[in-house]
Amino acid sequence: MTTTDNKPAENGVNVQALLDAREVLKGAPEAAQFTWRATSTWKQGKGVASSSTVQNFFGLGAEQQHKTVSTFDIDHPEVFAAEDNGITPIEFLLVGLAGCLTAGVASVAQNRGIQLHSVEATIEGDHDVRGILGADPDVRNGFNDIKVKFNIDADASKQEIEALVAQSQKRSAVFDALSNPTEITVEVV
Amino acid sequence: MTTTDNKPAENGVNVQALLDAREVLKGAPEAAQFTWRATSTWKQGKGVASSSTVQNFFGLGAEQQHKTVSTFDIDHPEVFAAEDNGITPIEFLLVGLAGCLTAGVASVAQNRGIQLHSVEATIEGDHDVRGILGADPDVRNGFNDIKVKFNIDADASKQEIEALVAQSQKRSAVFDALSNPTEITVEVV
Repeated sequence: MTTTDNKPAENGVNVQALLDAREVLKGAPEAAQFTWRATSTWKQGKGVASSSTVQNFFGLGAEQQHKTVSTFDIDHPEVFAAEDNGITPIEFLLVGLAGCLTAGVASVAQNRGIQLHSVEATIEGDHDVRGILGADPDVRNGFNDIKVKFNIDADASKQEIEALVAQSQKRSAVFDALSNPTEITVEVV
Repeated sequence: MTTTDNKPAENGVNVQALLDAREVLKGAPEAAQFTWRATSTWKQGKGVASSSTVQNFFGLGAEQQHKTVSTFDIDHPEVFAAEDNGITPIEFLLVGLAGCLTAGVASVAQNRGIQLHSVEATIEGDHDVRGILGADPDVRNGFNDIKVKFNIDADASKQEIEALVAQSQKRSAVFDALSNPTEITVEVV
């Protein structure tokens, strides 16, 4: 914790734009319908390795795109008899959760006038791999549980920092997507 | 679909090692306990932007590490009044799902002696952003639903290809993690 001054918080979040968007979208629910996309290509003959690309998405009633194409190499580690030319698919879930909760902390801090100095998170997902290997039908395939630890330096009390993190969880897309079920349909075209 | 020949499938998956691991881990459940990790750092003053790093994990009873450090930039798009210096957290979930189902298709095809020529997937996640903006308390924060479409060229019938994809879903860590709830604890240290 650092001493407080009276300047407005400068966390770099345009919170007014987000508050304005909230008001606009209350009256325009169709504009709030986003579709996020990824396309994935198997690396032919390279076992479980693939690459995924993210650029386009739909939102505010129109096609949108990120300003750059992002490509991700995905593989399994050597302990799974693979070449480890990229992180494991399930690790991407932790990356997303870290980014979402951190974005939320920054946004809520800005909205509450709290100056942040640093925000670090460590995320761990426990995973019993007997599920995916088919070694025990009673073991689930996904994480057993996920633990997130935040270390935050801000001009705020411990209690205020805890409240920031709690509000971030409450509004987090990824926290919800991992905590609660989502219907997934898979088809061959 | 391509014509079948009689050579063994060469998809590059060491399926024997995975079958051996399954047998070994049946009798050694403690070795099957993995912990995946990511560490995340807010980009000070850069709004919702952060970077996450993945390298170390625990498994087979010991600390392990990927052969390289992977770092990911995470941000929000310009339509969310951010700088778009990285994909959005929730998009990482689609990247993980694509990679996991594709790895499964490759592994199951190898196990069934099916030669793959190409595997492409497009993944879409529908998301009503009124949830995360707090515009409507009845809208969830995460995806409404996720749709995956596979386009696979393999020495196999359409029915066999559909069976590959179905088995991949059945063993997928990420499919389970997104389809079913996981307990997440978040604390401030």
